[in-house]
Amino acid sequence: MPEKRKLAIIVHSGTLDRLYCAFTLGSTATAMDMETHLYFTFWGLNMLVKGALEKAGLPANYKHMEEQLKKRLGEMKYPTPYELLKRMKASGLLKIYACSPTMEMFGIKKEDLIPEVDEIAGAAAFLDIASDADITLLI
Amino acid sequence: MPEKRKLAIIVHSGTLDRLYCAFTLGSTATAMDMETHLYFTFWGLNMLVKGALEKAGLPANYKHMEEQLKKRLGEMKYPTPYELLKRMKASGLLKIYACSPTMEMFGIKKEDLIPEVDEIAGAAAFLDIASDADITLLI
Amino acid sequence: MPEKRKLAIIVHSGTLDRLYCAFTLGSTATAMDMETHLYFTFWGLNMLVKGALEKAGLPANYKHMEEQLKKRLGEMKYPTPYELLKRMKASGLLKIYACSPTMEMFGIKKEDLIPEVDEIAGAAAFLDIASDADITLLI
Repeated sequence: MPEKRKLAIIVHSGTLDRLYCAFTLGSTATAMDMETHLYFTFWGLNMLVKGALEKAGLPANYKHMEEQLKKRLGEMKYPTPYELLKRMKASGLLKIYACSPTMEMFGIKKEDLIPEVDEIAGAAAFLDIASDADITLLI
Repeated sequence: MPEKRKLAIIVHSGTLDRLYCAFTLGSTATAMDMETHLYFTFWGLNMLVKGALEKAGLPANYKHMEEQLKKRLGEMKYPTPYELLKRMKASGLLKIYACSPTMEMFGIKKEDLIPEVDEIAGAAAFLDIASDADITLLI
Repeated sequence: MPEKRKLAIIVHSGTLDRLYCAFTLGSTATAMDMETHLYFTFWGLNMLVKGALEKAGLPANYKHMEEQLKKRLGEMKYPTPYELLKRMKASGLLKIYACSPTMEMFGIKKEDLIPEVDEIAGAAAFLDIASDADITLLI
């Protein structure tokens, strides 16, 4: 049986536009039967705290477009970031890693995170996975 | 004949500094005879609308340096982003993809885009190309 | 003797959060005996000017959290960005490249840069290294 293709993304950003980019890539990848690994660090990690994804917004540069964009996404019935994440998870092909030093930095505990997180891990775990991936990205 | 090396970049950003980074990498790659694939999404896609590249500016953090930087680039006779894009295109080694969900999200139509765009495509097309690339980046 | 695994990162950003991300990945990679190549361009290159790394701060979006984050990092005795860079350098596995067009753009001279820089180079040098790397990222 041939090995599955692998996508590895570091999610450093915590803004809606960049989460959508990462999660759209990820959910497309799982739909294509690719293994998908998302390593959340810094602002990205902060968005794995329960209730945070629902509040994601646009960065300073584009803040004035936030309301209109959210309205438009609703009209398109585009899934929310959390819905995309659950969809990827349901495929059985997604692994979510939470960066351990970031958790210490921001005083975030395991029980603060959404239950979809698979593993709390340092950068070494990500580098091992990414070394073996077909596509590596950072957002 | 050996296959050419391949560079695949997702252009998510729409600010001058990041467009210059992507386009300088791309035009260097085509000059080195590498196949170059640029997939424009979100703010990046918005910069493919006719007339938009000419208005690209710096992000909030660095706005105060914009005028001076543009003046300096003029003195250096550094090509504009659109000139770099046309130069890559002229090499025959560049393919430009416009992200279809982004177009729907922002109400952008095919005829609104600059003629250099090769294909309107979803994330799956990019993932297939990137799986086979030597270098994958997101900016 | 097997070849070492290789990590190649373009450091485009100059903010504390993104420098920490790049340098934590880099110092973890060198600790794992991976060759690490950091190519500094644009705002990232500006942070290689002597004295600049010490002044790195958070971007506009998160500026209000800067003081608290720096205090917390001090309590954790987390290394500063410059300390991480020197630690990578001491491993003998890190090469630092300064982007030549950026230097011209900002009027930065070789003698303005910290002594840890190995080479002033254009994008072609980075593309050659990255073509051969196991992990390529841009931050």
